[in-house]
Amino acid sequence: MIQTDILIIGAGPTGLFTVFEAGLLKLKCHLIDALPQPGGQCSEIYPKKPIYDIPGFPEVLAGDLVTNLMKQIEAFEPGFTLGERAETIEKQKDDSFIVTTNKGTKHQAKVVAIAGGLGSFEPRKPQLENILDFEDKGVEYIIRDPEIYRNKKVAIAGGGDSALDWSIFLADIAQEVTLIHRRNEFRGALDSVEKVEELKKLGKINLVTPAEVTALKGSTKLENITIKQNNEEFDLELDHFIPLFGLSPKLGPIANWGLEIEKNAIKVDNTLDYQTNIPGIYAIGDVNTYPGKLKLILCGFHEATLMCQSAYKRIFPDKKYVMKYTTVSGVDGFDGSRKEAEKAVVKSIN
Amino acid sequence: MIQTDILIIGAGPTGLFTVFEAGLLKLKCHLIDALPQPGGQCSEIYPKKPIYDIPGFPEVLAGDLVTNLMKQIEAFEPGFTLGERAETIEKQKDDSFIVTTNKGTKHQAKVVAIAGGLGSFEPRKPQLENILDFEDKGVEYIIRDPEIYRNKKVAIAGGGDSALDWSIFLADIAQEVTLIHRRNEFRGALDSVEKVEELKKLGKINLVTPAEVTALKGSTKLENITIKQNNEEFDLELDHFIPLFGLSPKLGPIANWGLEIEKNAIKVDNTLDYQTNIPGIYAIGDVNTYPGKLKLILCGFHEATLMCQSAYKRIFPDKKYVMKYTTVSGVDGFDGSRKEAEKAVVKSIN
Ligand SMILES: Cc1cc2nc3c(=O)[nH]c(=O)nc-3n(C[C@H](O)[C@H](O)[C@H](O)COP(=O)(O)OP(=O)(O)OC[C@H]3O[C@@H](n4cnc5c(N)ncnc54)[C@H](O)[C@@H]3O)c2cc1C
Ligand SMILES: Cc1cc2nc3c(=O)[nH]c(=O)nc-3n(C[C@H](O)[C@H](O)[C@H](O)COP(=O)(O)OP(=O)(O)OC[C@H]3O[C@@H](n4cnc5c(N)ncnc54)[C@H](O)[C@@H]3O)c2cc1C
Repeated sequence: MIQTDILIIGAGPTGLFTVFEAGLLKLKCHLIDALPQPGGQCSEIYPKKPIYDIPGFPEVLAGDLVTNLMKQIEAFEPGFTLGERAETIEKQKDDSFIVTTNKGTKHQAKVVAIAGGLGSFEPRKPQLENILDFEDKGVEYIIRDPEIYRNKKVAIAGGGDSALDWSIFLADIAQEVTLIHRRNEFRGALDSVEKVEELKKLGKINLVTPAEVTALKGSTKLENITIKQNNEEFDLELDHFIPLFGLSPKLGPIANWGLEIEKNAIKVDNTLDYQTNIPGIYAIGDVNTYPGKLKLILCGFHEATLMCQSAYKRIFPDKKYVMKYTTVSGVDGFDGSRKEAEKAVVKSIN
Repeated sequence: MIQTDILIIGAGPTGLFTVFEAGLLKLKCHLIDALPQPGGQCSEIYPKKPIYDIPGFPEVLAGDLVTNLMKQIEAFEPGFTLGERAETIEKQKDDSFIVTTNKGTKHQAKVVAIAGGLGSFEPRKPQLENILDFEDKGVEYIIRDPEIYRNKKVAIAGGGDSALDWSIFLADIAQEVTLIHRRNEFRGALDSVEKVEELKKLGKINLVTPAEVTALKGSTKLENITIKQNNEEFDLELDHFIPLFGLSPKLGPIANWGLEIEKNAIKVDNTLDYQTNIPGIYAIGDVNTYPGKLKLILCGFHEATLMCQSAYKRIFPDKKYVMKYTTVSGVDGFDGSRKEAEKAVVKSIN
């Protein structure tokens, strides 16, 4: 059982910054995310695109914002359960909560902060009748560890950035990369499209378009796929089939936790601390709703900050916390590190 | 009369970021600040100190944060009335407001956003009976334009960073710089103390410690000051006397505008838009108070953002605004500039 002070569901920008504000209050955090990497929408949907409305950044790439946040929270040593979806929550006699993921990992904390954004990112799956039988037996929807494809025969399906970028990346690692798309046109960054074109010419990517995968075959694991191109079908022998049709967020299991839901978001008390109708469970960032709510990154940062103050009172009902500016008191990491402003000296001049 | 959409009182980080959020809504802003430069506390009190809790910045100097914000809002062409204190406000028949400064400058807007922080920064003045007579006639408490001291005889009083840093700066410009302090010990950045020590040795700064200024003399303008050192008094001929004893913020005239005040701050409706008890007047950042309020920079950013949405509805009651992400729709400056993410291409691969 993983134990922590604040259990954060969702490692998007809001969840990540929560670790920092909690750390200033000496509270430890652990994050669960369905995605294999932190950053939420910023990492999954638009890592290479600029954001213009993060205060103090005239322009910052979404991926760089996530990198910066990870660096900012590093000293507070957050724990991560990645690639797992928070499935159930149970309140304990001592008022703590136990949250269990779809893979059975259990987490216990006095405070749960739901920073689940638009929901847990779930892959869009192709309509192939036996696809569930091959999941994790040759069919993957997300590339977690590219090394498992070394010297393997791989087919990727899709026509967007993920399909293009992973085809390029795996061209150097896999024995054979086939990219299948139902049109001739790809939609992505110009560089990526041009790079795939070049790798195709060099024979490092087999391009099969316009085409569709119509069947999966294999005994204990995937061995063959059937591809339909121009009304003709043929089989391709391979080790891995990776349909990259995008991930779409689903509020999912959280919707059944007894929380008040409105417009697919969790209602919170914005007059104080962004707490839900269940004391001890907060909802911050894109996942919550209240009058005037804006689904912006900078709003999630504010909500996380106020929420941590309330969490502190729940965890330490008898302690009084006096806020100090980071500039004045510095930042003490849980790893023993200390950041602080250079102190003024008092020195006589002779 | 200066006309604008949102008149912002206070050019600290909160006021500055308001210009950006208003700009996204195509609203123009004008800022008034009692200080000669933008940035509020960050510029005035700790420009060279690092802040650790601005989201996305593991560390940023307060002065650099201000520079970044100025860059971020540049395309929205804010107007500035600097070095003037907003003194009175009058509601007009058409529901707009006219705000007049201590120097008589008038500003008209439908929305007033008070981002006044801890109040307008006012200099601490030495206790010298006729000092008011010499203000702007040889006595200045803030250095607005160092050029006016070129080839002049200048005395600075004080023992902190401002006194040290301006003595160093003026040593190259003025004909003569005298630094007077009532102790031998100075309190400031180590560099600054050492630099003053060095300039003293080179004869570029006359150091008079421990000493105090006890009288000011002159007919139409300041001509002499009396300095008391070790119980002996002597006169120093000069053109300018600059006591730099720090600025302290005072809520000041705003306290008499009919706004609900609590704990020296303006009460606002945090359940929606940070509006005060007077419709059309908002209070954001350090200057406001509500249950759970934290006087943090990141909170001011959020408050400014929500406030602008409400201001938009007040200014354009009949238009409906649909929020768009900056990443998706880009940023159109009032100066004709446009920032936007590189678009995805749709391209066939042959
Ligand atoms: C194309 C695009 C452009 C954008 N541009 C801007 C912009 O310019 N400015 C701006 O401010 N905002 C912008 N946004 C919105 C911004 O990305 C979101 O406001 C922000 O990501 C919200 O952060 P968050 O941490 O609240 O949630 P998210 O980033 O959505 O992260 C939530 C995370 O929670 C996880 N999760 C949810 N439920 C579960 C569960 N049950 N178990 C495990 N994990 C779970 C999800 O997998 C996800 O990783 C843009 C969004 C998009 C898509
Ligand atoms: C030493 C120190 C360290 C700090 N460290 C941190 C930190 O680490 N993190 C953090 O988040 N915050 C920190 N703060 C607090 C932070 O600086 C404030 O939260 C922030 O400056 C508030 O911004 P603001 O724009 O609301 O107000 P301010 O920065 O106070 O700006 C308000 C401006 O309004 C002007 N004004 C007021 N009334 C009038 C008037 N009637 N007419 C004209 N002008 C007027 C003032 O002159 C001033 O320039 C620190 C503060 C100090 C002093």
